[in-house]
Amino acid sequence: MPLASLDLQGAHACFGGAQRFYRHNSREVGLPMKFSVYLPPQALEGAKVPALIYLAGLTCNEETFMVKAGAQRSAAELGMALVAPDTSPRGANVPGEADAWDFGVGAGFYLDATEAPWKPHWRMESYLTQELLPLLGEHLPIDTARIGIFGHSMGGHGALTLALRHPALFRSVSAFAPICAPSQCPWGEKAFTGYLGPDRSQWSAHDATGLMQACEQPPFPAGILIDQGLSDPFLAEQLHPQRFEAACAQAGQPLTLRRHAGYDHGYYFVQSFVADHLEHHAAQLGVLPLRASH
Amino acid sequence: MPLASLDLQGAHACFGGAQRFYRHNSREVGLPMKFSVYLPPQALEGAKVPALIYLAGLTCNEETFMVKAGAQRSAAELGMALVAPDTSPRGANVPGEADAWDFGVGAGFYLDATEAPWKPHWRMESYLTQELLPLLGEHLPIDTARIGIFGHSMGGHGALTLALRHPALFRSVSAFAPICAPSQCPWGEKAFTGYLGPDRSQWSAHDATGLMQACEQPPFPAGILIDQGLSDPFLAEQLHPQRFEAACAQAGQPLTLRRHAGYDHGYYFVQSFVADHLEHHAAQLGVLPLRASH
Repeated sequence: MPLASLDLQGAHACFGGAQRFYRHNSREVGLPMKFSVYLPPQALEGAKVPALIYLAGLTCNEETFMVKAGAQRSAAELGMALVAPDTSPRGANVPGEADAWDFGVGAGFYLDATEAPWKPHWRMESYLTQELLPLLGEHLPIDTARIGIFGHSMGGHGALTLALRHPALFRSVSAFAPICAPSQCPWGEKAFTGYLGPDRSQWSAHDATGLMQACEQPPFPAGILIDQGLSDPFLAEQLHPQRFEAACAQAGQPLTLRRHAGYDHGYYFVQSFVADHLEHHAAQLGVLPLRASH
Repeated sequence: MPLASLDLQGAHACFGGAQRFYRHNSREVGLPMKFSVYLPPQALEGAKVPALIYLAGLTCNEETFMVKAGAQRSAAELGMALVAPDTSPRGANVPGEADAWDFGVGAGFYLDATEAPWKPHWRMESYLTQELLPLLGEHLPIDTARIGIFGHSMGGHGALTLALRHPALFRSVSAFAPICAPSQCPWGEKAFTGYLGPDRSQWSAHDATGLMQACEQPPFPAGILIDQGLSDPFLAEQLHPQRFEAACAQAGQPLTLRRHAGYDHGYYFVQSFVADHLEHHAAQLGVLPLRASH
């Protein structure tokens, strides 16, 4: 299979649209990569539609969101595509790559590694921004001028940091239970030490709180949405939304941070609020907010 | 753990309600059994709510529907509970029980086996009707006078046959891609030969088409709903909805059989129409059809 071609590995009708799974040879990662796309009915009828990139959490893959989040219903109503990449390279055969559930395979942290042995393949940031987005525009009925990004946990970190690092690519951003200050939590410290090295001065460029602290004006003036469950077992030690909240306040960045009593870290939480996220993005991507009745 | 007590093994907030997973020692099966329950917000506020029993297909378990079907959103809006049992006994250690994906473990076919070695444990019909339903009424805020039943594939067979065999227990019935005439398809012939023996005269009492053919008046005068994808790879050989359709016509049983171009056999199909099924049951169970906005 040549570079820049997509191999369709599965397709399923869903809410009048198409749920597809693709594989392609990635130039940036140097390995085959998989991703999933939900195309709403409007896209099958010839329209170029806006799309949301969803970044999943530790241990997940390109299927997790599509099968567990129940987001296709709202995407079909709003006429928005959903795109979910895998969470890391797979098949690199780096020694130790699968020894831990929170580092290596399934734990790419959506950045380009600068340290050996990860540097050659662990290039998720370049993969997403330099390769996958152009491929979507080239091969699929997706309007790459109207792209939003969201994600969950490690993928919430990815969504916030990639949106802040590439505001020209992503016009809207939201997150479920994101790792908000990875430089200051065990998951992030482990990942950043491994991928970026021990020099902490290099970390803040990949830390949502650090990036927001460096903003002199609000990068997303229409607002950022974050949902967080208060029964999330990772909240106190790993997620630190209050640090991102403080950084937003300092930068004048509008943030809707909703704290939900009783909700935990899983997809029963995500599915409960995913329609609100799609509507948040729809409003900022210029999608008409009227819902078709289903 | 004594009989008739439930062990809560997991609980997750979901759409303002509770997604729970239970385990209990089953009297009818003679082994521990698991099931899942979604309780809508109304049930947590003290109301006894109607419930839908969902029967899953081959290879599935008590988690499949809850994690893949996206039904909780509609259940919360309508104020209905969802209950999904496992698809067979597990842990019986019957020789060969796990050798095939379409017979034995994960393939109980929702009947009581009459043949050795399955007879002692493979008692899914008695388990559901004589044990699980009473347990739900005893331990959970569920109104057992307002129970509907639905299911998918093998579970669609289960829903149709159990509804027709126990119309006093189930007030409404629907199915996704059900095995409609198991006596006349490979899956059903294998299962019925194994569980019920080679005498085909015993089979029609567990065959939806056979049961409907024996009806002199319509058992569900308010109607039965079936959704079927036309790109379902099992349609021609295994499912035979047209046979059930003919039997309903003969009995005067109202049937809405919707044939959907392009849809296959999986949960992307199920999730596309699950809200319609919940509304079908809600209407017949006396739930007000008004939707709360979410």
